[in-house]
Amino acid sequence: MSTPDATLLKDFATLSAFGATSGGGVDRQAATAADGEQRAWLHQWLTARGAEVRYDGVGNQFGLFTVIPGAPYVLTGSHLDSQPLGGRYDGAYGVLASAHAAHRAVQRWNASDGTPRHNVAVVNWFNEEGSRFKPSMMGSAVFTGKLPAETALTTTDPTGTTVEAALREIGTIGDYPGPDVAAYAEIHIEQGRDLENKGLNIGLVDATWAARKYQVVVRGEQSHTGSTVMADRRDALLGASLLVVAVRELAEESTDIPLHTSVSEMTILPNSPVVVAREVRMHVDLRSPDEALLDAAAKRLAESIPGIEERASVTIGQVQTHGWGVAAFPATGVELAAQAADELSLSHQTMMTIAGHDSVNMKDIAPSIMLFVPSVEGISHNEGELTDDTDISAGTDLLTEVVHRLMSGALD
Amino acid sequence: MSTPDATLLKDFATLSAFGATSGGGVDRQAATAADGEQRAWLHQWLTARGAEVRYDGVGNQFGLFTVIPGAPYVLTGSHLDSQPLGGRYDGAYGVLASAHAAHRAVQRWNASDGTPRHNVAVVNWFNEEGSRFKPSMMGSAVFTGKLPAETALTTTDPTGTTVEAALREIGTIGDYPGPDVAAYAEIHIEQGRDLENKGLNIGLVDATWAARKYQVVVRGEQSHTGSTVMADRRDALLGASLLVVAVRELAEESTDIPLHTSVSEMTILPNSPVVVAREVRMHVDLRSPDEALLDAAAKRLAESIPGIEERASVTIGQVQTHGWGVAAFPATGVELAAQAADELSLSHQTMMTIAGHDSVNMKDIAPSIMLFVPSVEGISHNEGELTDDTDISAGTDLLTEVVHRLMSGALD
Repeated sequence: MSTPDATLLKDFATLSAFGATSGGGVDRQAATAADGEQRAWLHQWLTARGAEVRYDGVGNQFGLFTVIPGAPYVLTGSHLDSQPLGGRYDGAYGVLASAHAAHRAVQRWNASDGTPRHNVAVVNWFNEEGSRFKPSMMGSAVFTGKLPAETALTTTDPTGTTVEAALREIGTIGDYPGPDVAAYAEIHIEQGRDLENKGLNIGLVDATWAARKYQVVVRGEQSHTGSTVMADRRDALLGASLLVVAVRELAEESTDIPLHTSVSEMTILPNSPVVVAREVRMHVDLRSPDEALLDAAAKRLAESIPGIEERASVTIGQVQTHGWGVAAFPATGVELAAQAADELSLSHQTMMTIAGHDSVNMKDIAPSIMLFVPSVEGISHNEGELTDDTDISAGTDLLTEVVHRLMSGALD
Repeated sequence: MSTPDATLLKDFATLSAFGATSGGGVDRQAATAADGEQRAWLHQWLTARGAEVRYDGVGNQFGLFTVIPGAPYVLTGSHLDSQPLGGRYDGAYGVLASAHAAHRAVQRWNASDGTPRHNVAVVNWFNEEGSRFKPSMMGSAVFTGKLPAETALTTTDPTGTTVEAALREIGTIGDYPGPDVAAYAEIHIEQGRDLENKGLNIGLVDATWAARKYQVVVRGEQSHTGSTVMADRRDALLGASLLVVAVRELAEESTDIPLHTSVSEMTILPNSPVVVAREVRMHVDLRSPDEALLDAAAKRLAESIPGIEERASVTIGQVQTHGWGVAAFPATGVELAAQAADELSLSHQTMMTIAGHDSVNMKDIAPSIMLFVPSVEGISHNEGELTDDTDISAGTDLLTEVVHRLMSGALD
């Protein structure tokens, strides 16, 4: 491994200042002022290095390095938006590494006698996190035809602001249809501790875990927390709490194959200390590398609902809003990245991604490569998120090599 | 029982239009625009009937009918503020009945040869509900010296607006120190179904249930809902949910003596669908007519906490914020009201109040009488709250008689 690249680290420090929090993280949810500032900075960075920056109709930001006019583009990127009190690395590292990798690859082609088959473009996908506007992975979902642009643009945040209004506010919405994509590459922090535990430099993602996401509505009835006799209560928050516990028990019961389950958001109505809740809306998230296990867990969860409805005197409605199956990234891409890592003397393994990434959308429309660098202690969606500078730098070196090879048409 | 008083019912319909909701209820939380409108209406109503309207430093609204200058006042009232999507009767009925009763009592004294010993004043206590600003019963708590005015005025709502700023916004804050109180009378809907079940017209409150209210903070750590392995999670929402269930179990286990328990409000941080919650703040409410049982329940709850902390890998802090013991209303007041009810041929029983009322504060500084009228099906803190017109009218007749007797110095 080479020594850390000082220019890259300096740029990462600059980027990390946008929306910086006192706890060492960042808070720059999609299309907030902080997101606008970092987008403007990236715009300037790309333009200064010869790229043309364009925005599509849902705020995806593209930096086009055009070497061969008219040729398709190798697209590389990730997302700059973060969770509330999120970490500095999640998404942002991938965008910055992509910007450096694309710029370096172009310089290498320019300095060589060869000619690439493809151009390269950097992308900063809009709203990968899905905290302010749901669902997550929104920009890449629209780009890959999985979500209508109109649906995305009319989505509102909790205060009623639409995606379109928020994007116009920060000025990063346009009419660029997006480049013709020859291949896609993304690098991201692992958000787990497997690479760290094994002392490896790089994860080569060969498949995704499956995920199922549900919106659940628990309906009870408002009453007085003091005077209403217990037998008369139809307590939506009790029903919701029983469901949170049932969701955790699914994971606790699954000892052989991993099953990750969670509820992390609730909207409680009216959320008054002296009024029994009439309604709770919540999201349930189930993930596993085994689709059959996931289906069985979803079935067990559904079976637990009548008992909860009876105990809390509520009704529970459940709708699957979003999800994806176990799906492979192309083996040729994994092989290309493995060879590049070997040449750079970076240790590596293949692994699955548990978290969703924009590459999970992109792999369905173009040959895609997804790379991981280690996360210290696996901490993520937390201000304490950390990846060592050497890993930051090594990952960018590998992405540069991967992008360079893709530009030559290696996966065509 | 007499036929319903058309003037009273017309005034009640007018009052019910402020903050009216499509579901037949009202939404007029403390010091909102709707609260300001109804206060202005009451101000005008009282002034038109010869009362002088004054505001104290925490927004309590007084309508002074002064018959004997310099004499103390019989105070009668309740609160106009409501829960979000609350009912039309809770509090508002008591204020309107008090306004009518005070006015009628003064007319009776004026038409008679006698002279009262005391004047009468109507009061609309600020923020009895405690949904926008906590704690509940705020205005009467300050008036009775249980809560410093400064603490009340600097209390903020969820958007950071202080009580003082909100009161100045609606213009109902002043420097009136409040009247010298000879006695206090309040009428309220029962918010339970005991009177309805027994076919009785009036409840004479002889004591309060005890209540204990706790603020609980569950602290975990933010992490990724997808990628973080289950064993690494410190899920504050799981801890909070286990506690909600434990709180309900306290009530389920108490079969001989009633114990009402609830959690109806949570603040979840960061409340994102893909971030394990780092913190949940919640309120726990325990009530019983038996203080020893309540103490035992609080002890059992405290004992359940270490197990919850371990299961969810969280820490839980609990502070009692508010509460009151089983406390009697004076027997002489109950007797006075019983005699008045008998004269009006209204059936009655003595009973305890489970809900807190401003009278629970007032009884500690003045001889106080608390009356209940039936609630249809006991429904309260709900748009469907209902009391029959005949009960509305009969309760006001009784309150008039009670106020008239108190003005003669019956409880001095």
